Amino acid sequence: MASPHDYGTAFPNSRKIFVEGSRGIRVPMREIALSGGEPSLRVPDTSGPTGHDPRTGLPPVRNHWIRDRDLERTVLANGNGPEPRGEPTRVTYRGRSCVTQMRYARLGEITPEMEFVAIREGMDPEFVRSEVARGRAIIPANINHPELEPTIIGRAFRVKINANIGNSAVRSSIDDEVEKLRWATLWGADTVMDLSTGEDIHETREWILRNSPVPIGTVPIYQALEKVGGVPEDLTWEVYRDTLIEQADQGVDYFTVHAGVLLRYVPMTANRLTGIVSRGGSIMAKWCLAHHRESFLYTRFGEICEIMRAYDVSFSLGDGLRPGSIADANDEAQFAELETQGELTRFAWDLDVQTMCEGPGHVPMHMIKENMDNQLDWCHEAPFYTLGPLTTDIAPGYDHITSAIGAAQIGWYGTAMLCYVTPKEHLGLPNREDVKQGVIAYRIAAHAADLAKGHPGAKAWDDALSKARFEFRWRDQFNLSLDPETALAYHDETLPADGAKVAHFCSMCGPKFCSMKITQDVREYAAGLGIAEGEALGHGMNQKSREFREKGGEVYLPESGEPALP
Amino acid sequence: MASPHDYGTAFPNSRKIFVEGSRGIRVPMREIALSGGEPSLRVPDTSGPTGHDPRTGLPPVRNHWIRDRDLERTVLANGNGPEPRGEPTRVTYRGRSCVTQMRYARLGEITPEMEFVAIREGMDPEFVRSEVARGRAIIPANINHPELEPTIIGRAFRVKINANIGNSAVRSSIDDEVEKLRWATLWGADTVMDLSTGEDIHETREWILRNSPVPIGTVPIYQALEKVGGVPEDLTWEVYRDTLIEQADQGVDYFTVHAGVLLRYVPMTANRLTGIVSRGGSIMAKWCLAHHRESFLYTRFGEICEIMRAYDVSFSLGDGLRPGSIADANDEAQFAELETQGELTRFAWDLDVQTMCEGPGHVPMHMIKENMDNQLDWCHEAPFYTLGPLTTDIAPGYDHITSAIGAAQIGWYGTAMLCYVTPKEHLGLPNREDVKQGVIAYRIAAHAADLAKGHPGAKAWDDALSKARFEFRWRDQFNLSLDPETALAYHDETLPADGAKVAHFCSMCGPKFCSMKITQDVREYAAGLGIAEGEALGHGMNQKSREFREKGGEVYLPESGEPALP
Repeated sequence: MASPHDYGTAFPNSRKIFVEGSRGIRVPMREIALSGGEPSLRVPDTSGPTGHDPRTGLPPVRNHWIRDRDLERTVLANGNGPEPRGEPTRVTYRGRSCVTQMRYARLGEITPEMEFVAIREGMDPEFVRSEVARGRAIIPANINHPELEPTIIGRAFRVKINANIGNSAVRSSIDDEVEKLRWATLWGADTVMDLSTGEDIHETREWILRNSPVPIGTVPIYQALEKVGGVPEDLTWEVYRDTLIEQADQGVDYFTVHAGVLLRYVPMTANRLTGIVSRGGSIMAKWCLAHHRESFLYTRFGEICEIMRAYDVSFSLGDGLRPGSIADANDEAQFAELETQGELTRFAWDLDVQTMCEGPGHVPMHMIKENMDNQLDWCHEAPFYTLGPLTTDIAPGYDHITSAIGAAQIGWYGTAMLCYVTPKEHLGLPNREDVKQGVIAYRIAAHAADLAKGHPGAKAWDDALSKARFEFRWRDQFNLSLDPETALAYHDETLPADGAKVAHFCSMCGPKFCSMKITQDVREYAAGLGIAEGEALGHGMNQKSREFREKGGEVYLPESGEPALP
Repeated sequence: MASPHDYGTAFPNSRKIFVEGSRGIRVPMREIALSGGEPSLRVPDTSGPTGHDPRTGLPPVRNHWIRDRDLERTVLANGNGPEPRGEPTRVTYRGRSCVTQMRYARLGEITPEMEFVAIREGMDPEFVRSEVARGRAIIPANINHPELEPTIIGRAFRVKINANIGNSAVRSSIDDEVEKLRWATLWGADTVMDLSTGEDIHETREWILRNSPVPIGTVPIYQALEKVGGVPEDLTWEVYRDTLIEQADQGVDYFTVHAGVLLRYVPMTANRLTGIVSRGGSIMAKWCLAHHRESFLYTRFGEICEIMRAYDVSFSLGDGLRPGSIADANDEAQFAELETQGELTRFAWDLDVQTMCEGPGHVPMHMIKENMDNQLDWCHEAPFYTLGPLTTDIAPGYDHITSAIGAAQIGWYGTAMLCYVTPKEHLGLPNREDVKQGVIAYRIAAHAADLAKGHPGAKAWDDALSKARFEFRWRDQFNLSLDPETALAYHDETLPADGAKVAHFCSMCGPKFCSMKITQDVREYAAGLGIAEGEALGHGMNQKSREFREKGGEVYLPESGEPALP
């Protein structure tokens, strides 16, 4: 079943295994085999099925889950992507009634999607259902994305990370973007956003969806703007609505909708250091001012919900007024929009539409928690999905680090998904290596948050790696790393000899100074003393220490018997 | 005075300037010139004098500050380093009485060192004096390190970072280490520790000290162990004492002394996942167990203080029992040692010896604050100096990131200095590029901490960079970055044309989708409306919003006049 090449060269000694559920559900995990009699470790696997041809797309594993829902066929406009199983036109659907996971959850039904994520998370399916019903978690899963291996986004679950890809008017091709998708999910992206803004926006998205095992998010206003020649003032509700339907038919799992950018909030940004930095937010701000009318994303929000619920597209309520600099963090404009996001969340929930809320941005550490507290309060515990936040502005070229610091913190405080930032942020388009650097930095932030939240199972990974490190199982240490290739390469740089991979010392200190080696000697020695004696020793010394303190608290000097200095 | 090549190619448009104090004090700063009529920005400069020959060493700027202190000449053993100003033997001193900054501070004296750091920090010299007198800050400044440009380590000041260098038995040369020193201080290391353990340990240190504008720290037990053939059991107080004197004569500014590793604490580590991971800690643990006696670092602590106060070497009380894995964080052994560090701090302070305390290590985020709280309490607000902490164990190859997350947090909570971690941590010896990556990651963490603490002046740097970004002053944005070369190179990758450096858009979105460009349009529009109208608009809309909520809280839909969904 599993091949040694499940992950190319990325994860040596790992194989893809499947945990079986009911109804033919098979949940992929990555199993890392260890040496020295250690049990293998299972870790989450977002890499998707292997060995498929991108021109055919991934197998539609969800087809038979979806089949019995209350659906009708739709005709996919502009279909020019891959041709699954040789069919010239892909069959797409929409719900005759509401077909969202939230709807089923509220009706008490545990869907295959819920069971799938429950196995993935090691959680009870009923708990998953209750969190989705309550709105505290979402399972973005468009009925037209049958290739999806579902994931859950909510603060009771593993912190998720999103990777942005997408071509732009400046450069990059469809092939590049599909390859970036596979690359991002190989290293651990839980969802991917296609932020394409250039030509072939529909076709790029089609290729990405048919090859994506993870939820795909988009910002539909980008494509709508393309349709009106790039002039924000020329946007209309009709163009936007048709774009939503077009993308919902294709299978997009969540839409960023900047419906919280209201006309009256726009002047609040005029005195900011960096104004409006969200593309979607600035487009809508310009539209509002040009027409001096309220945003159609807000006034038509009910109609947007109608589309979302017919396909089970989840809302990602955009934060169009997020701060673009430390100076603008937590200001009036930002929090005004957040309150409106909360209002819109309630509205969407009343229609059983799954909803999460986007958050900042650039925020110094001491102002991060206020973001999480307000979001939980004002948005009724809907999942929070933040971009970083970046904790300083002074390190372009290293914003995967400035933002991983903030992301780890806000993840700990309760953010459900972290949108990655690559080293190219603010400077250029991320290439393959940048995508990897961004994903790894965010896997670190997310895992650090899981540890801090006490997520069950998170610590087992750390313990397995540290045990391998302590026992000089070098290969195991590399293989348990988020990036085994890099760990091995770094070790090779100093100690390339193959024998060094079994050596009981390492290159930092050399054999004589190795503290781990000395510790093992210490441990044997302590074991020789026996625990009883060890405790007696501790007890006796503590006793002496107490006596000493009682006599006035000067340092105990048993060798000289006198204070060493006058 | 300043040359355009003060920083090689590292910092374009920067020049070294000097702020003059009394007594001929000249404090270096880096001044970044900006375009568009913006005022230049001054940032800290740790790079030291330029254009000197490493074989001669740096100019001894402190000589005339030290001259009048109560000193006597010493003879430097084993002198075989550079020959300053052609002298075959360097003249070295020790104090006849206590010559520490703490002593002078408590006597009410503002030394040149205090004035220097006050100018550097933009603080009142009297405040500097009071913090040093109180023990809340230290100025590591051995009287035999006249090349030093002093720096202050304390939580009321800028968070500092330390870079470790040093050869080992496995590889690297003296030239490599001096070059790493210059490289580390160029990018922003505030202090450097020489952790050499191989041959030529004395000579390496001599070259480093004579070329170092920043305080140099060492762990003397490493050299002492070399002297007894690498067998911890063979260590004696006499060998250690002579090593302290040898290094104090050379000019080392602070010593890591693991005097808190007590015999009774050693058995507490026996059941740890990763035992004792500090080299110094494990050496002393082994010594204690082998002899079944209390550590001579503890029993002879008073005598050690006597040496420290005669040279003004500061204590960095080592944390030999720091956790080496998430599993071992905040355990009994670690906190037992921390309490002893506090006891030793009091003892050192009674003798006017400057003291800071070292801290962990590997600690998950939710357990970091307890470290800071306990340290402030038990160690009486002596400066805390932590290694990271690393917030997860699962990313060897990226531990500059796992630890920058923890370092930023603990810096915010009050840690005064952060010991960097490079990408090679746990895997190999850092090369030049690794040193740079470690320093930049820690400059980010330290600056993020300064912002979060509200350090005066920290935010000006962020604001200058963000303003440049918003105004499309690309060159200024690069030049204000912690690493201008990398920022420029990343921009070039996508948009290499020189014209792109003045373009009013960037490569991420292309010209049509640039949110910053749209925001500027929005701002002009808003300005056209006038603030009065903007406020009136906001007021009117808020009024409408209130009315709407009062009517039942459904979304306001001015375009349709009706709720959009049944």
